[in-house]
Amino acid sequence: MVRIGIYGYGNLARGVEAAIKMNDDMELVAVFTRRDPATLRIATENAAVVSCNDVLSYKDKIDVMVICGGSATDLPVQTPALAEHFNVVDSFDTHAKVEQHYNNVDEKAKINGKTALISTGWDPGMFSLNRAIMSAILPNGKDYTFWGKGVSQGHSDAIRRIKGVVDAKQYTIPVDSALEAVRSGANPELTTREKHVRECFVVAESVEDQPRIEKEIKEMPNYFADYDTTVHFITLDELKKNHSGIPHGGFVIRSGATSDGVNHVIEYSLKLDSNPEFTGSVLIACARAVARLNARGEIGCKTVFDIAPRDLSATPYIEMLRHTL
Amino acid sequence: MVRIGIYGYGNLARGVEAAIKMNDDMELVAVFTRRDPATLRIATENAAVVSCNDVLSYKDKIDVMVICGGSATDLPVQTPALAEHFNVVDSFDTHAKVEQHYNNVDEKAKINGKTALISTGWDPGMFSLNRAIMSAILPNGKDYTFWGKGVSQGHSDAIRRIKGVVDAKQYTIPVDSALEAVRSGANPELTTREKHVRECFVVAESVEDQPRIEKEIKEMPNYFADYDTTVHFITLDELKKNHSGIPHGGFVIRSGATSDGVNHVIEYSLKLDSNPEFTGSVLIACARAVARLNARGEIGCKTVFDIAPRDLSATPYIEMLRHTL
Repeated sequence: MVRIGIYGYGNLARGVEAAIKMNDDMELVAVFTRRDPATLRIATENAAVVSCNDVLSYKDKIDVMVICGGSATDLPVQTPALAEHFNVVDSFDTHAKVEQHYNNVDEKAKINGKTALISTGWDPGMFSLNRAIMSAILPNGKDYTFWGKGVSQGHSDAIRRIKGVVDAKQYTIPVDSALEAVRSGANPELTTREKHVRECFVVAESVEDQPRIEKEIKEMPNYFADYDTTVHFITLDELKKNHSGIPHGGFVIRSGATSDGVNHVIEYSLKLDSNPEFTGSVLIACARAVARLNARGEIGCKTVFDIAPRDLSATPYIEMLRHTL
Repeated sequence: MVRIGIYGYGNLARGVEAAIKMNDDMELVAVFTRRDPATLRIATENAAVVSCNDVLSYKDKIDVMVICGGSATDLPVQTPALAEHFNVVDSFDTHAKVEQHYNNVDEKAKINGKTALISTGWDPGMFSLNRAIMSAILPNGKDYTFWGKGVSQGHSDAIRRIKGVVDAKQYTIPVDSALEAVRSGANPELTTREKHVRECFVVAESVEDQPRIEKEIKEMPNYFADYDTTVHFITLDELKKNHSGIPHGGFVIRSGATSDGVNHVIEYSLKLDSNPEFTGSVLIACARAVARLNARGEIGCKTVFDIAPRDLSATPYIEMLRHTL
């Protein structure tokens, strides 16, 4: 059994907890929280709820710590600190800071003989793995990543911060004609606006506020100004009834030529009912790999680029040869 | 530079040769042939054409031998024999004999300090890799493989062996409604007949033969009897004009749940203008990995399950972190 600790207990952590239940070789030992442990109810019987302050007392009871903090402020501190004492997995996704995070984690893990796998999930994670393999196979080509249809937590939050907004949900949606152009192998140049549209469902305090709120959304720099954005005002009941899920997904498509006029298209896509549950499932498969790498003495910081498929899988190799190859 | 030898010179070998030209870190040193080398023209200047009988004189001049023989009789002999002297890659695809082939190659490679990667290409190969990763992430699920639309060489050959057939091309085509049922996450039970149809374009010696030929095709056990098969009789000119390519492709789709009622669908698909050129491109990316594994002392027989994405790629790791993750 791989003994798992979960550090933090938000949506992603609950996704990791659900994934552990689906894998017979995985056992949740403890959830570590900044809150008062007595106030936290988790979904696993027989797993401890422990204060973050006491995490070091679990040094020998946990094989891999799955760190479920946020990328903005939590993971840059938590992952290197925990990698001094545990094998770790995280879902760090601040693209511009990945290299720095990698170096910080690598240093701490190596000094202490630990293995860390950072920036996994679906993007970064499975999408990265597919981009890497596709471009290795078709070097003379171009790849495209589309996100959605799915809920963007960051964009939903941005709308909620507008004065007069009670609640909101934002969907990122790939543009069908752009997807089709990419699938055709035409290698089109696509602007931000041409790849995705944004659809917002907003509950406003009053009808009078709606024109101003819609204008503020559509003109918001970075978040909406570069996109074709649609705003729907709905009631709080409608929002709760029809938009309470956290679905997501997307597409990675690479087209390339192997000789003059001979083209190929590789496509990888995800359609996810729950972003945190799927991400949690990827983190748990990666935790399995981390436990194995560490047992073989492969220490330091890793990414999905370093992981062979057999190490993600609970299936014996001979069975993979017989039934999966 | 990775110095490549190609063993055999049919369609797949020409695909490998095309792939080498697309990869700056790859160099074709020699093509080995059973024919008289003087009669063989290859597409690479500065590469030697050498008799198979002289292959051992290239022991120190080649880093990886890409073996392009057939699975039925060539590869079971060639791959273990060549693995005594070279690092090798093959595309062995006789499913029922993979385990035996693996063991034969593993023994020879290990004794001689060589690294072999067998059964790669797209299926087995990229499809296998995706089946393995998908099922590691969503263990509580089911995966489906569809082939096509594409030319089946084996089925085309079977038709050509019928009396009165001048030439023929057979396309395997996935059934759209079956694909959609799988994508919906319904995890349907699908029979052979429900997943694929077979479409045949046949040139007959005479019109009178056509009813008999059609009947013989449709009733041919193993090849056609279990499928809905359509037969079109066309002229030799039409066959040459419209059916001279070797396109192929297919889909691997897995759907699975991470908790009660929370479903996810992962889909990987290929649309290939040329089956042998794409397969050749996969073999060359795998040859790069084999060269690296051998340099690190990782000897013996491997499959795509053993290969980390970074070893397939010519891109430096730091660039992968910055741009691909």
